[in-house]
Amino acid sequence: MMPPPLPSADNIAKAARLIDPVFTGSPLMTHHSADDALGLCLFAKVETLNPIRSFKGRGADYWMARQPASSGAVVAASAGNFGQGLAYAGVKRGRPVVIFAAKNANRRKIDAMRRLGATVILEGNDFDGAKAAARAYAATQDLPFVEDGAGPEIAEGAGTIALEMTETLNQRGIALDAALVPLGNGALLTGMGAWLKAAAPACRVIGVVAAAAPAMKLSFDHARLETTATAATIADGIAVREPVPYALDCMRQVVDEVLAVDDPSLEAAMTFCRDHYGLIVEPAGAAGIAALLERGKLLAGRTVGTVLCGSNVASA
Amino acid sequence: MMPPPLPSADNIAKAARLIDPVFTGSPLMTHHSADDALGLCLFAKVETLNPIRSFKGRGADYWMARQPASSGAVVAASAGNFGQGLAYAGVKRGRPVVIFAAKNANRRKIDAMRRLGATVILEGNDFDGAKAAARAYAATQDLPFVEDGAGPEIAEGAGTIALEMTETLNQRGIALDAALVPLGNGALLTGMGAWLKAAAPACRVIGVVAAAAPAMKLSFDHARLETTATAATIADGIAVREPVPYALDCMRQVVDEVLAVDDPSLEAAMTFCRDHYGLIVEPAGAAGIAALLERGKLLAGRTVGTVLCGSNVASA
Repeated sequence: MMPPPLPSADNIAKAARLIDPVFTGSPLMTHHSADDALGLCLFAKVETLNPIRSFKGRGADYWMARQPASSGAVVAASAGNFGQGLAYAGVKRGRPVVIFAAKNANRRKIDAMRRLGATVILEGNDFDGAKAAARAYAATQDLPFVEDGAGPEIAEGAGTIALEMTETLNQRGIALDAALVPLGNGALLTGMGAWLKAAAPACRVIGVVAAAAPAMKLSFDHARLETTATAATIADGIAVREPVPYALDCMRQVVDEVLAVDDPSLEAAMTFCRDHYGLIVEPAGAAGIAALLERGKLLAGRTVGTVLCGSNVASA
Repeated sequence: MMPPPLPSADNIAKAARLIDPVFTGSPLMTHHSADDALGLCLFAKVETLNPIRSFKGRGADYWMARQPASSGAVVAASAGNFGQGLAYAGVKRGRPVVIFAAKNANRRKIDAMRRLGATVILEGNDFDGAKAAARAYAATQDLPFVEDGAGPEIAEGAGTIALEMTETLNQRGIALDAALVPLGNGALLTGMGAWLKAAAPACRVIGVVAAAAPAMKLSFDHARLETTATAATIADGIAVREPVPYALDCMRQVVDEVLAVDDPSLEAAMTFCRDHYGLIVEPAGAAGIAALLERGKLLAGRTVGTVLCGSNVASA
């Protein structure tokens, strides 16, 4: 089988026109108090104010828009945000959506997926366990299994975030020196990286993992697939033990560096978002800010972009 | 002297093209969990994600855009948000901005005004005391005094919020049954009302005051100017003791009803915004939600709009 093509800037531009507008056109927040605290100029794309409170609607809606018309069910695994996106996109098109989530998944995310119309099955002890169960179920039932991070469409949908950032900043005559992007399965980072390398090649593309779930960083740094035994971080949205090989292939083309941040930095980043932007952001969604809190001095005085990519905290 | 003209829909459309885009195009948030909790369909315009974290940039920027070019200073009074808007608009055009605020004004708002470049003078025991001092200072120094709520431009700038709401909802085939708008000096309510009465005449336009600062409601209900001795509410952004006569004239044309909400309802509304939308909203900014928490049953099943108009809480 041919490997799937890499995410392309052309398809990202196409996705920007196809994705349901409830998910696009998000604010690009900047605030003088945040910039003063960090010692740099930060533009934060706020992906928390849509009907699923995360960026995942972009990729899920674009993926589904690119499928042949069908009323058949689709199966996926999710920590909770991708499942909400797929449920939203499915309901709109009359396609049942079956989501496998880990037995210990974030309850609010599970409730939200069900409320949006998904059938949610709890199986496995973590995200990767749920994914194995989803894959097996889809094979048994002969249903399509969609794996977040494993093909270009979902990354291309997420890449529209970078397209909107560069459009807005170009209008103001501003260029990004670096983009700090939370890294879980890789769809957000590789989609944004594909756009930035084409449209803003001087921008350094940096992924951020939780130090307690470092599989993607280890795999990127060592240029080989590495899994970890656990992924015990508060950042459930990026708690990956088993990297998606396709995402790693893409990362090699468009990512310059991967940083790891501690859980206390993720907590400090959540507080930072609340104080300076008035936003509740989930731990994974604040990973870019956490990296700036740990290592921002390296970017002192620079113009930096990040994505506050989700706000489905376990409890508010 | 002729009374100033009422805010007009034509000028609101003009303002939508003139206002600095950092203030426009804000998200229109909707979330199933919020709707389930309220028993109606709520669209909340999120005005907290711009460089001053409130809607006041729209009116301030449009007001300044309509003034004759000048490098002279302007004087105003502010509880803190309008002053930030004016400071932002002034710095952009090289015009010094002098803001009078009450001695007990919200410290974070004072800091933010100064950080944005305004000269802030603390005088008076409340907003209306600061306003009297500002007016006297402007007269002594022979500088223009701009009074928020007292002329059409600032209301027309704020009216662009309603223009964006109806544009977005029309695209989705949705019509508003009612709009619940925080009511302080009246610029937001009358600007939005002017647009809604022209573009969505079936939409009921409802202002919301803090019960502990009821001067605007009393004046509207009794059709005569009424002041109160105190305005002791946590909602500093709408703590008005002395109504602006022009705003009351406008309200008679475009407002259907004014509700009053208790401070505990404002606190509950802030919690609601945090839990359901992931947003920190200041008390005045959550007044529309507070009214729904107190009286939402009257609008059960309806489609309702509101504005989360500021997030400059005294402490986060």
